[in-house]
Amino acid sequence: MSELRWDPIKLYWVIIATERGRRPRDFQVESEDDGMVACPFCYGNEDKTPPEIFAIRPGGAPNTANWRVRVIPNKYPALRVEGEINNHGYGMYDVMNGIGAHEVIIETPDHDRTLADLTIHEMTDVLTAYRSRYLDLRRDFRFRYMVLFKNHGSRAGATLRHSHSQLIAVPLLPPVATTQLRVARKFFRDKERCIFCDLIEFELRMGERIVREFSNFVILTPYASSSPFELRLYPKRHSHDFALMNDAQLAELAVAMKDMLMRVKSVLRDAPYNFILHTAPPMHHRPGKPEQWNSLEHDYHWHIELVPRLTQVAGFEWGTGFYINPTSPEDAARFLREAEI
Amino acid sequence: MSELRWDPIKLYWVIIATERGRRPRDFQVESEDDGMVACPFCYGNEDKTPPEIFAIRPGGAPNTANWRVRVIPNKYPALRVEGEINNHGYGMYDVMNGIGAHEVIIETPDHDRTLADLTIHEMTDVLTAYRSRYLDLRRDFRFRYMVLFKNHGSRAGATLRHSHSQLIAVPLLPPVATTQLRVARKFFRDKERCIFCDLIEFELRMGERIVREFSNFVILTPYASSSPFELRLYPKRHSHDFALMNDAQLAELAVAMKDMLMRVKSVLRDAPYNFILHTAPPMHHRPGKPEQWNSLEHDYHWHIELVPRLTQVAGFEWGTGFYINPTSPEDAARFLREAEI
Repeated sequence: MSELRWDPIKLYWVIIATERGRRPRDFQVESEDDGMVACPFCYGNEDKTPPEIFAIRPGGAPNTANWRVRVIPNKYPALRVEGEINNHGYGMYDVMNGIGAHEVIIETPDHDRTLADLTIHEMTDVLTAYRSRYLDLRRDFRFRYMVLFKNHGSRAGATLRHSHSQLIAVPLLPPVATTQLRVARKFFRDKERCIFCDLIEFELRMGERIVREFSNFVILTPYASSSPFELRLYPKRHSHDFALMNDAQLAELAVAMKDMLMRVKSVLRDAPYNFILHTAPPMHHRPGKPEQWNSLEHDYHWHIELVPRLTQVAGFEWGTGFYINPTSPEDAARFLREAEI
Repeated sequence: MSELRWDPIKLYWVIIATERGRRPRDFQVESEDDGMVACPFCYGNEDKTPPEIFAIRPGGAPNTANWRVRVIPNKYPALRVEGEINNHGYGMYDVMNGIGAHEVIIETPDHDRTLADLTIHEMTDVLTAYRSRYLDLRRDFRFRYMVLFKNHGSRAGATLRHSHSQLIAVPLLPPVATTQLRVARKFFRDKERCIFCDLIEFELRMGERIVREFSNFVILTPYASSSPFELRLYPKRHSHDFALMNDAQLAELAVAMKDMLMRVKSVLRDAPYNFILHTAPPMHHRPGKPEQWNSLEHDYHWHIELVPRLTQVAGFEWGTGFYINPTSPEDAARFLREAEI
């Protein structure tokens, strides 16, 4: 069983994933699985993964071929779904057993296509699978937060080449979410406005960091980009919860997603990247007191963050928490805006 | 001129290092400079670097050969030493000009030896150079904090192979330091003890995470290690300020440093790593009110943090602030303790 351990001085949680138990010799050059004989994410290999949790398929039995998108539990999960949460102390430390969920969304049956290569229709299927898993997992009251992310390329942490994203449900509100939710809540309380809405309006007015504007979405480079060619995709209209998007909105989002991924692929020549979907936690687990929940239901603004992995996180970043970015977001936006896709 | 920009939602500073101005084509596979004709850090190439700030040499003029350790300004600094601090607003954002210092400590004239390969005497010279630069830079009241770090190997962010470390002085207290200083201060105020001293005592009693104990130093793997084979080197006796170490203490530290680096080199076969020296900021810039400084002069405990770069930071870590570590610190300590060096 994995353990969550708290650092009482640096104030962060780590997940000691002992079931992965890696020894010194296991850390060889980490590359993708090009030499693999049978990819477990391809058609016909459905029995090489744990049984599916969700799939989009025109017909046929679960765990057979002919699916379009397939969601399975991670074979080597960082957190396990079975058990009750056990939160205790150990000397001066805090520790918690590793309860959670760790799922893999296989975005396409085609081994050789990246997410950027999918059609709008296929991309809509992927987003539909995301929404479905969010709605299902939030019914489990042990989970405080769900984070959906994608690692594209081995330098971004991908270990299998076949295009997939991951969804991890965690028993604690993560620090990155806590910070954003607190800031948004305070801003909303002070001004009765959403801080993200203000930011989007300011950026649309300035223009120099806008990459592409759609009727209902906008793609931009953040003013304080921590690394080169970082991107954000926001719904323009206020919306705190990704999982409440209807089918028509998902289809529009698919267009914007594909646009963003194509630009990154074109300008940075299929560079490794990570993206993360940031959305409000299930309402009954919002930070603060229960009586505050209703009034604050709408103080967050979901969005997608995309970070190309072009530079290495080095000693300075790790030692300070500052980031050094050698490409200004204004330059990055210009290159991405002018990309031929 | 570089700019420090504040993200008002994620609450971090980034340094937009525009003078490095990297365009998409500049982000090719980043590898060390093995094919370089003349290494600027080797004997005889002293004129290929900016003039030296400090050197240890038996005799001879500055910027000539025969030095043992040499400190120079970084040719492509993230922050520049010239100018006054200008802190202003831009719409909803905060921005500050990039004032600071960025120095490079060339640890040896020998192109092919790593820091672990240095003799104890040579290692003492390196630590002496570190101390000297700390003492000098803290006289500049614009600098709130100095961070000394090393990137070993291209996957840890090194761009030149010749062994060197870096020292960056920043005009703001970095988030990582702020967190640790606040925790240590609160603990000291509550209990009249140092939290690091407590941690060291607890770890020495438990033993399972101790890698090596010397009379005055201890090397251990942290209970909440964020990545595999992470290490800390602490002075056992309370000491808040690295720069106050005397020559005899530096010579003892050199023994412990070499021991730690040799173990990493042996067990992880010269894996890339970062180390960071964490020490108290110059006293006149401590956080809190001036009247609190005297009583809190001693509430920090300097140490060295070493992080081998064996895994990639991926979407989950970036999106949550949680870390997944596939090797328990107890296993890592055992491997490192039993290393043949």
